[in-house]
Amino acid sequence: MSDQKAFQDYYADEVSVCYGCGRLNEQGLQIKSYWDGDEAVCTFRPRPYHTAIPGYVYGGLIASLIDCHSTGTAAAAAYRAEGRPMDTEPPLRYVTASLHVDYLRPTPIEADLVVRARVEEIGRRKIVVASELMAGGQVCAQGRAVLVQMPEKWLVDE
Amino acid sequence: MSDQKAFQDYYADEVSVCYGCGRLNEQGLQIKSYWDGDEAVCTFRPRPYHTAIPGYVYGGLIASLIDCHSTGTAAAAAYRAEGRPMDTEPPLRYVTASLHVDYLRPTPIEADLVVRARVEEIGRRKIVVASELMAGGQVCAQGRAVLVQMPEKWLVDE
Repeated sequence: MSDQKAFQDYYADEVSVCYGCGRLNEQGLQIKSYWDGDEAVCTFRPRPYHTAIPGYVYGGLIASLIDCHSTGTAAAAAYRAEGRPMDTEPPLRYVTASLHVDYLRPTPIEADLVVRARVEEIGRRKIVVASELMAGGQVCAQGRAVLVQMPEKWLVDE
Repeated sequence: MSDQKAFQDYYADEVSVCYGCGRLNEQGLQIKSYWDGDEAVCTFRPRPYHTAIPGYVYGGLIASLIDCHSTGTAAAAAYRAEGRPMDTEPPLRYVTASLHVDYLRPTPIEADLVVRARVEEIGRRKIVVASELMAGGQVCAQGRAVLVQMPEKWLVDE
């Protein structure tokens, strides 16, 4: 996937400050999402301080990865559905309306976390993305996010 | 509430390293939860880099606050149900089985975020906690977490 540009690298600067996925947020997680066929994949290595109890990742990180990977996947899927690349106008950006995470087992901190997402439903303004978070070949968490198109007025005052 | 000790301050050292709520995690959020009658309250001021889009908090922080405040509330409620203080043995600690967050409106970053939680259901090993996250007097998100008692063996190998 290294020859692909990540979904998040297509975002305009003003929407690239997200702690989870903004390439301009220096303190943030800066996750990157790519297509792998019909699935979108994101790999993240937790930092040593992302602990829950010793040896395992805290649930908020898992929720954050699933959340930001889902908004990215929604955007990429919306462009794909319109048959145009992510660097064309008008921009399509999504925000989370709801997020559900099932924590199936403790997630090891010393492993690459791989989130695989697929689009379950795609409407004009609403997209549903289901995902699995794996570590060491085991599914540790499952996510389901409902994303809605971001109103342009949210950025008007900036 | 300043004369109360926070729920998280009763945790043993080995379970106080959580990025969200561990008092020993120096890089973490170190949230604090307190009883206010039958509700548990946690107040958190986002840091400037906790951005989603400019001016607003990223969803992963909201999920993290609701998650950790809910595990703390579950523990405190379990002790309360047994009629004993949180510094008595045996310890009761909870982990998240599932987390659901509805994001109702953008959450301002320049505000104290107040999470109020109440116990919806309390069983021997499973507790359900519902919560609201408010900023500037408005409910910005609602959460529902299912918590289960942490198996002691999770800490055996440390």
